[in-house]
Amino acid sequence: MTAPIYHRVALIGLGLIASSMSHAMRAKGLAGEIVGHAKSPETRATALELGLCDHVYATAAEAVKGADLVVLAVPVGAMAAVAAEVAPHLAPGCTVTDVGSVKQAVIEMVAPHLPDGTCFIPGHPMAGTEYSGPRSGFATLFVNRWWLLTPIDGTPPAAILRLQSLLEGMGAKVNSMDAAHHDQVLAVVSHTPHLIAYTMVGVADHLAQVSNSEVIEYSASGFRDFTRIAASDPTMWRDVFLTNKDAVLDILGRFAEELFVLQRAIRMGDGEHLFDYFTRTRAIRRGIIEAGQDTSAPDFGRSAPPPPSS
Amino acid sequence: MTAPIYHRVALIGLGLIASSMSHAMRAKGLAGEIVGHAKSPETRATALELGLCDHVYATAAEAVKGADLVVLAVPVGAMAAVAAEVAPHLAPGCTVTDVGSVKQAVIEMVAPHLPDGTCFIPGHPMAGTEYSGPRSGFATLFVNRWWLLTPIDGTPPAAILRLQSLLEGMGAKVNSMDAAHHDQVLAVVSHTPHLIAYTMVGVADHLAQVSNSEVIEYSASGFRDFTRIAASDPTMWRDVFLTNKDAVLDILGRFAEELFVLQRAIRMGDGEHLFDYFTRTRAIRRGIIEAGQDTSAPDFGRSAPPPPSS
Repeated sequence: MTAPIYHRVALIGLGLIASSMSHAMRAKGLAGEIVGHAKSPETRATALELGLCDHVYATAAEAVKGADLVVLAVPVGAMAAVAAEVAPHLAPGCTVTDVGSVKQAVIEMVAPHLPDGTCFIPGHPMAGTEYSGPRSGFATLFVNRWWLLTPIDGTPPAAILRLQSLLEGMGAKVNSMDAAHHDQVLAVVSHTPHLIAYTMVGVADHLAQVSNSEVIEYSASGFRDFTRIAASDPTMWRDVFLTNKDAVLDILGRFAEELFVLQRAIRMGDGEHLFDYFTRTRAIRRGIIEAGQDTSAPDFGRSAPPPPSS
Repeated sequence: MTAPIYHRVALIGLGLIASSMSHAMRAKGLAGEIVGHAKSPETRATALELGLCDHVYATAAEAVKGADLVVLAVPVGAMAAVAAEVAPHLAPGCTVTDVGSVKQAVIEMVAPHLPDGTCFIPGHPMAGTEYSGPRSGFATLFVNRWWLLTPIDGTPPAAILRLQSLLEGMGAKVNSMDAAHHDQVLAVVSHTPHLIAYTMVGVADHLAQVSNSEVIEYSASGFRDFTRIAASDPTMWRDVFLTNKDAVLDILGRFAEELFVLQRAIRMGDGEHLFDYFTRTRAIRRGIIEAGQDTSAPDFGRSAPPPPSS
C-alpha cells in the first residue's frame, strides 16, 4: 500500500469505467475515500452493496463536495449538464477529469463551467469490454492499457502529474496529446471500426435468405468478433458518433473508397490486387502483437476466463 | 481409443487445418496411418519432424495411393489441379473430401475429375486462427466448432456417415446443407466481415495525419479485433473472394447501403436512429453467446493461453 494520492474521489456515473476505477483504487490504496453518484437508485444501491463507494449521493452536486478529484464518468452527451450542475460545488484546488472517448467536444462542454481555482484535465482510458453497469467493473481493466490525457493550456503541471500517478497506480500507461489529434486517432482505431461492426451485424439481421439462427449458429469466423464489438453500450456509442462527427465522417469516406476498390477487384477477378492488399494488412497485425497490445494466442479468446460479474 | 475409422488418411496440403486434423486424429486413434503431401520440401520435413505424417510424398499422386480417405487441404484456387492430378491414383471405394471455405466452386473444380467407385463429399471446417503452416495446428482446433458438409446427390449415405464419425471424433459438430446455401451463409458470417476488416486496416495504413505507430500503439478497442481478422492467410482469402464472388458482392452491396444510412444519421445528428440501431445489434450478440459460439469473457481474449506452435 502506498499513501493515498487523493483524499476523496467522487465518481460521477457508476458504470464499467467508474466501478473498475473503484476496484483498482481500493486494491492499491490510491484513494482515501471514494464517493459516488448515479442517477438510478438501483445503481447507487449496487455501488454500496459491492463496496464501490463509501457514500453515494442522489445528486452529483452533493457527491463532489469536499472531493479533491472528481471523475466525470457519464456518457459524453451528458457531460455538459453534469459539469454545469457540479461546478458551483467544487472544492477549491479540486481536479476534475472525465473518461469520455471524445475529447474536443467534452472540453467544449465542461471547461466553460468550471470556476477559477479548479482545473479540468480531460482523459480517456482506452479500455473497455462489451459489458456495462456497476457490476461489470474489475480491478485489472486498466492494466497495461493506455490512458490518454489531453490537457488544456495553462493547467498546472503538478495537477497533471498527480492525476498521472493515480492512473499509473491503477496500472495504466499514460500519454498526453492534443485533443484534436486524439479525436482523429480514435476515429481510426476505434470509432469507425465500431460503426462498421454495427453495420455488418445489421446487414446480417436484415437478410431474408439466411436466417438469424444460422447467422448466430455459424458466427465462428469473422462475424463473431464483429458482434462482440457491436454489443457495446448503445448510449455511449451514439454520443461518440454525434460528438466526433467530422473525424468519423472523414475516415468513413476513405473506407468507402477503399472498399469500392476491393469490391471492383473481386468483380474483375483481380487476384493479384487482393493478394497484395491482404499481405500488407498482415504486417500491421504483426506490429500490434509486437507492441504488446494483444496476445498472439490463436484461439480468438475461447479459453479466456469467465466474466467477473456476479 | 476407438478403432480407426479410416485405415489410411492422405492429407494433401499440410497447413493449419491438415496439421490440426493430424493432431486430433492421432489423439483419438481415428486413423490407422496418416500420410501427406505438401509442395514445399520444408513443409514435408516439418510434417515428419512433428509426427504429423507417417510418410510424406513429393507428389499428391503418390500420397493418395491406397488411402481410403483423401483430404484436399489446399487453397481453393489449387483444388482443380490437385483433383486432376490425384484422380487416376485413387483407390476404389475411396472417399475424397476437402476443407475449402467455398463449396459450389470446389464442387465444380473437383467432382468432374473423380472416377466412378470413389465419392466426393465436400466439407468446410469452420475453425481457424490467424496462423498458417504445419506448425500452427493443434488437436483441439475443431472442438465444438461446426464442420459443414455439402453432399452431392447420389452419394452413398454410408460414406457420409463414416466421414461424419471421423469429424465428430475430432470434436466437431457436423451439419449438412446445400452448397449454394452454404456459400450465402458464409458470405455473411465470414467472407464479407473479413473483407471489411482488411479494408479498415488498409485505410489506417494509408493515413497521413495519424502515424502507423500510433495506430499500432492505440489499437486496443475495435481495431485490434479487425487486425486479427485481417492477418489471416492471404492466398486462402484471395481464393475465397474470387470463387464466392456473387454472394460476397451481394452482401457487400447491402453493407454499403446500410453504412450510408448510418453515415447520413451521423451527418444529420440523428441520435435516435443510431441508438436504435446499436440496441438491435446488441441482441444478436447475446444470441451468439447463448448459442455457445463464444465466451462471454469481458477481456477480449487478453488472458488466453500462449500459441501452441514450437
